[in-house]
Amino acid sequence: MILDGRQTAAQIREEIAAEVSQLKQQGLRPPHLAVVIVGHNPASETYVANKEKACRQVGFDVTRIALEASVTEKELLDVVGRLNDDDSIDGFIVQLPLPEHISEEKVTRAIDYRKDVDGLHPYNVGLTALGQRSVVSATPKGIRELLARYRIPTEGKNVVIIGRSNIVGKPMAMLLMQKPYLQLPKMSASALGNATVTLCHSKTRDLKKICLGADIIIVAAGQPSLLTADMVSDGAVVIDVGINRVEDATQARGYRLVGDVDFSNVAPKCSYITPVPGGVGPMTIASLLQNTLQVYKDRLAVKS
Amino acid sequence: MILDGRQTAAQIREEIAAEVSQLKQQGLRPPHLAVVIVGHNPASETYVANKEKACRQVGFDVTRIALEASVTEKELLDVVGRLNDDDSIDGFIVQLPLPEHISEEKVTRAIDYRKDVDGLHPYNVGLTALGQRSVVSATPKGIRELLARYRIPTEGKNVVIIGRSNIVGKPMAMLLMQKPYLQLPKMSASALGNATVTLCHSKTRDLKKICLGADIIIVAAGQPSLLTADMVSDGAVVIDVGINRVEDATQARGYRLVGDVDFSNVAPKCSYITPVPGGVGPMTIASLLQNTLQVYKDRLAVKS
Repeated sequence: MILDGRQTAAQIREEIAAEVSQLKQQGLRPPHLAVVIVGHNPASETYVANKEKACRQVGFDVTRIALEASVTEKELLDVVGRLNDDDSIDGFIVQLPLPEHISEEKVTRAIDYRKDVDGLHPYNVGLTALGQRSVVSATPKGIRELLARYRIPTEGKNVVIIGRSNIVGKPMAMLLMQKPYLQLPKMSASALGNATVTLCHSKTRDLKKICLGADIIIVAAGQPSLLTADMVSDGAVVIDVGINRVEDATQARGYRLVGDVDFSNVAPKCSYITPVPGGVGPMTIASLLQNTLQVYKDRLAVKS
Repeated sequence: MILDGRQTAAQIREEIAAEVSQLKQQGLRPPHLAVVIVGHNPASETYVANKEKACRQVGFDVTRIALEASVTEKELLDVVGRLNDDDSIDGFIVQLPLPEHISEEKVTRAIDYRKDVDGLHPYNVGLTALGQRSVVSATPKGIRELLARYRIPTEGKNVVIIGRSNIVGKPMAMLLMQKPYLQLPKMSASALGNATVTLCHSKTRDLKKICLGADIIIVAAGQPSLLTADMVSDGAVVIDVGINRVEDATQARGYRLVGDVDFSNVAPKCSYITPVPGGVGPMTIASLLQNTLQVYKDRLAVKS
């Protein structure tokens, strides 16, 4: 069965739009996200445009701050400082990657963790690891939400995660191995967690054997067809986080998007599987909207 | 072969003592640790006394701040605030557990992360998870050091951790699955990491099967004889973090200390194993000394 990220994300957007509309009826201003983009990386520009569009659809205010690739680290840090202090901004993201002369670590740490809707600040990462309330990185949050909305239990399941990035693999492992955090928002994935998680990566030996023991496999390695049918047990759940371009002369743009899973051969063995595109991708943007709404509410509560 | 934590810790203390003596010869004051203890929990008092003794042995200054169990949360937070501001204190710990009327979360978060030598502040936990330079929680840091000093490689090894506590299981998983952090201190565990880590806990199914696939098993569950010989493959490395009291009429004090491993039956199968006592315990205190020296040096560098 296909885990339809597009449809699920649309449902989340509707829920958020309804909530924003209610907030406005109460005379409150809508949540306001700022997006900082540096340079003209085409992929980044597409991501940012999609995020802005999603914000507008649900009634958020959104402000884009576009800086040239020649911006200095100091200038970018000043922008971050102003956004931290700007009371009209609830949350903001600095789209990665940044030009090489700018330290992503330094910029990420400079963001006020309370406005860090990407959940990448060490303080938020630490809270997530400790199993305490935090802003959770968008992609793992979206995957958890997708599992929750399809009512796929994780308790006691063997979960294998392939890829140990700071934005997907590591926080995904932290979320799924925790005792469930009871104060999660109502519609969210409160019943998840309690999984036995194995985190695999480039140094892992005998990946196939490890995957064959998995009830749920989450692949975030950035490598087309990394997960093949011989690595998947019957009935497994497969979540594909990869977004890779492969040449395809039959497509007008000359390429098509594929994930990290050999979808056509793996899908028949799965109880559930996410497609690429239309699986994890839309959920990631939905998570960003949820995070923005969360920090907005937290700020209002602080003030009232 | 026995992994002798007592001897290894003694060696680390000698190295630190030599470094402190050199610092003093340069006219610098020694590192200064403060220890806050609340109430009269006998185990806590023993731990604190051991930490103080270890500090004095290596030439650190150490100050104990003993508060009654009736102290309010506000009063304790005020003490934390004063220690944060006190320029003569390099680092401090608040011995856990705290009385029930005080939030450990709140107190831990109130500590300046730069003085958090227990490595429990969310900011330090986050840095550890992200694979960035941090103050690492003492027990997992000590285990990594023990593995390093016995030259036990972890790259590509299957590591099974039993227990998902915030002070042992989770940070241990983070350390061992990382790409090695290259700027670790010279004698430290720079070659470690790159393991395939599985984190197990009370909800894990078929723990035996998972353990049988492990090259290294780290048990931190607080349950005597949890790990039995039938769960361990020949040649495995076993690290026992448990410290449990079991009744023993043959002992003057009426009990003896045992770990989480059925030592006498498991040891013959292992390539390496830690005893209890004399394994992980002494390494934990050695890590606290290393952390105190680290934050001391960081502070001096900031000032000079």
